[in-house]
Amino acid sequence: MKTFTGSNILSVDQFDREAIHTVFEVADRMEPYAHRKKRTRVLDGAILGNLFFEPSTRTRVSFGTAFNLLGGEVRETAGMNTSALSKGESLYDTARVLSSYSDVIAMRHPQSGSVAEFARGSRVPVINGGDGSNEHPTQALLDLYTIQKELQHQGRDIDGMHIAMVGDLRFGRTVHSLSKLLCLYKNIRFTLISPADLAMPDKVLAELDKVGHRVTITDQLEGHLDKSDILYLTRIQEERFPSQEEANKYRGKFRLNQSIYTQNCQSNTVIMHPLPRDSRAEANELDDDLNQHPNLAIFRQADNGVLIRMALFTLVLGVNNVIHHYDCPVQWLTSKSDQQGL
Amino acid sequence: MKTFTGSNILSVDQFDREAIHTVFEVADRMEPYAHRKKRTRVLDGAILGNLFFEPSTRTRVSFGTAFNLLGGEVRETAGMNTSALSKGESLYDTARVLSSYSDVIAMRHPQSGSVAEFARGSRVPVINGGDGSNEHPTQALLDLYTIQKELQHQGRDIDGMHIAMVGDLRFGRTVHSLSKLLCLYKNIRFTLISPADLAMPDKVLAELDKVGHRVTITDQLEGHLDKSDILYLTRIQEERFPSQEEANKYRGKFRLNQSIYTQNCQSNTVIMHPLPRDSRAEANELDDDLNQHPNLAIFRQADNGVLIRMALFTLVLGVNNVIHHYDCPVQWLTSKSDQQGL
Amino acid sequence: MKTFTGSNILSVDQFDREAIHTVFEVADRMEPYAHRKKRTRVLDGAILGNLFFEPSTRTRVSFGTAFNLLGGEVRETAGMNTSALSKGESLYDTARVLSSYSDVIAMRHPQSGSVAEFARGSRVPVINGGDGSNEHPTQALLDLYTIQKELQHQGRDIDGMHIAMVGDLRFGRTVHSLSKLLCLYKNIRFTLISPADLAMPDKVLAELDKVGHRVTITDQLEGHLDKSDILYLTRIQEERFPSQEEANKYRGKFRLNQSIYTQNCQSNTVIMHPLPRDSRAEANELDDDLNQHPNLAIFRQADNGVLIRMALFTLVLGVNNVIHHYDCPVQWLTSKSDQQGL
Repeated sequence: MKTFTGSNILSVDQFDREAIHTVFEVADRMEPYAHRKKRTRVLDGAILGNLFFEPSTRTRVSFGTAFNLLGGEVRETAGMNTSALSKGESLYDTARVLSSYSDVIAMRHPQSGSVAEFARGSRVPVINGGDGSNEHPTQALLDLYTIQKELQHQGRDIDGMHIAMVGDLRFGRTVHSLSKLLCLYKNIRFTLISPADLAMPDKVLAELDKVGHRVTITDQLEGHLDKSDILYLTRIQEERFPSQEEANKYRGKFRLNQSIYTQNCQSNTVIMHPLPRDSRAEANELDDDLNQHPNLAIFRQADNGVLIRMALFTLVLGVNNVIHHYDCPVQWLTSKSDQQGL
Repeated sequence: MKTFTGSNILSVDQFDREAIHTVFEVADRMEPYAHRKKRTRVLDGAILGNLFFEPSTRTRVSFGTAFNLLGGEVRETAGMNTSALSKGESLYDTARVLSSYSDVIAMRHPQSGSVAEFARGSRVPVINGGDGSNEHPTQALLDLYTIQKELQHQGRDIDGMHIAMVGDLRFGRTVHSLSKLLCLYKNIRFTLISPADLAMPDKVLAELDKVGHRVTITDQLEGHLDKSDILYLTRIQEERFPSQEEANKYRGKFRLNQSIYTQNCQSNTVIMHPLPRDSRAEANELDDDLNQHPNLAIFRQADNGVLIRMALFTLVLGVNNVIHHYDCPVQWLTSKSDQQGL
Repeated sequence: MKTFTGSNILSVDQFDREAIHTVFEVADRMEPYAHRKKRTRVLDGAILGNLFFEPSTRTRVSFGTAFNLLGGEVRETAGMNTSALSKGESLYDTARVLSSYSDVIAMRHPQSGSVAEFARGSRVPVINGGDGSNEHPTQALLDLYTIQKELQHQGRDIDGMHIAMVGDLRFGRTVHSLSKLLCLYKNIRFTLISPADLAMPDKVLAELDKVGHRVTITDQLEGHLDKSDILYLTRIQEERFPSQEEANKYRGKFRLNQSIYTQNCQSNTVIMHPLPRDSRAEANELDDDLNQHPNLAIFRQADNGVLIRMALFTLVLGVNNVIHHYDCPVQWLTSKSDQQGL
């Protein structure tokens, strides 16, 4: 990746270690704005086209908030029904027209490859906010960013770490993308814990193998977590199963709670989850009794999403080095900065 | 209620007379901004999370507009389907994540108690925009504010007034909350007019009795309005009935129009309604022929909602005393101020 | 039309040539803002109520973007379900309440005449964004503006031109309104190409006849395009047919592609389409193989919609002559201006 300015962000494949380093360095500088220690007007007057052709509250709002925090405006579309696509319009046409309504676009769409297709017709940079089971690069970046921050806080590094991934490793898009990104790092150990039917796809395993990462595969949670620096849990992606009954066979198979954590993990194992976690009794893959645990990073992980998206917007719009010229004070009272962060 | 700054606004129970006085005093100062005599940038850069997990055009837009009028941005969610709640996420998790995307939250949700539950997980103040049949405190405050303004205009006071409430007093959430707030005032007379099946709940009656307010209960409209200073009409809440047929038994029972008003009311009786009024022929609880009547306060009542919500935002974010420091002129031509107000 | 300030924009019937000239002159001045050569804060603090009671991505976002480009905020409603209309509220009431939440309103509604009815209750100017099969004046204005710009670029004029309209001339609202506007011009020739069942309504034909425009009616595309300066294609409005099967009888009847264009048209014939075009194989009224053709004006046409809507907002709010006082630079990098325009 040579330059971010004017580029689309469509896939984790675009990123090398240097590009990732750049994004994370900018994300670090976004923290005072997100924590309301100061604010910036750098994107005052800019318009984000936030096109969510598939419902998603948290990702949609996270993109919109990231843009607002930089001073910009958001024009939003939520849901497929409200689109001319249903009248037979091609994604190319939609892109040509809608891209003239904004300065940058964040887009989610249920179909694999649709965001890249849209980007070919777009006159402004497009950031992929998830295209079906294909890609969700900002999620992968925020996951990796969280890993780096949490490990750095412990004085450690991504190279050489041990990560356990648990749950639906077949349909869970985030573990695929994160695994790909981790192929840019050295000497990582993976423990992949899932029902045999929901195992990590061979394609991803081959990539891990190719760069020399060591992988252990098991269908047992207990007894396999004692070496993990990072424990990455996932939800059974029930919406991708043929029926609810089919999904129910797997929901609740792996559960982490205070007692299992204490008995099986190192004292500094970081707990991650891309959220939402399924907290219904029959699933409950990550119990509430860990909510106050200092190693539970799931909400810091969600917060990091705003920082990553802010970073990408500033990079794509070429303002990453001038943000501070537009700093201004926060006029209202906020206790936000005290409650967030590590 | 000791301080507003950083507090949640969840229930009318939080308010004592002093707190109400504070809100109304700030609301009065919001009028020039709402009427476009000037504008303010006090919340420039602040973000409202406007989370409407149940459809509502007027309340949702009223909150959003109130925040825009103070200079802030709005990130919005409308409808339950677009939420991760359907994937088994707890309200606590939703709150933890979404609250990091804004500086204050306004929330509506169909389930009683849900907004308070959300507030426990939120990292920013939450204002209840209606949680099912439970609470809708900003509506109660705007109703009370309207009563005070309308009576003051006539040189009178809330203490000692006479109010008639008409229609669906059982499911009409607004009359319950307003009654509760009126318990903070002295020597009020209530005339409660409804079909026996839709009578004011005993719990509310007990509260009125406890503070010594005098209550008359009847199922007849005519002949019972002659002493009323305030006539508060409501719609049959058909969506809370088991069937449309069940609701139809009551729709159209009580109707106010020009001729009934003239024959039954004092010349200065103020007509209120929380809106929407059902104007279909079979209901028509408040006839169009009163639309030009100077005592019809229903649209002033709706306008007051913006003032009350502006006041609460400034109080909760601690800017109520500095707003005027951020005043600026209105550049565009507007005839708004001429058409509004008493 | 005497003055724009404070007026509603409900119908093309409001416009005479002078008013059109004014709108187009202001629209021309909007181009540097839309192309991001500079930006303006003239409507900083103003609020657009963007009320779309019928789904529409492009028109809704186009209005919102136009307002954002002028520095204003947008409060939006999309879809009928989220409205109190379903509780029996009259449009008058909805208008009285919602109009106090904004400084100007853009509104779409499925019912003919509904926007004018709403405007009677509104306290701020209302711009019709489409009311069923009745009117969509901003589309007609942007179509006419596109014709003028494209012909001017060729050194020609609207007076005396030849336009061919093709497709569903019965249900296609845009061709009716455009025809009406063209009645303000002199000596125009129309070639109307449609299946006999989807012919231009007699009412429109009578108006064309009245001002002396010459009209040729045919159901054949080939052999009738050789004199056209403007070729205006339309989609079969399948949503207005009793059934999909009924619509399918006409879809695909008239198709334009590179080879048909070259064989039948003059070398400078401008191709227009109100979009969305139906690109499914069975319809495909305007083939992708013309996408790079310099005479294909369909995306410039969509872009012009933003300019027209910006112009109307500035006129209605009385700021058309002061915009440049609020100019400021664009801080972010953009290649937008290079990719747009003729």
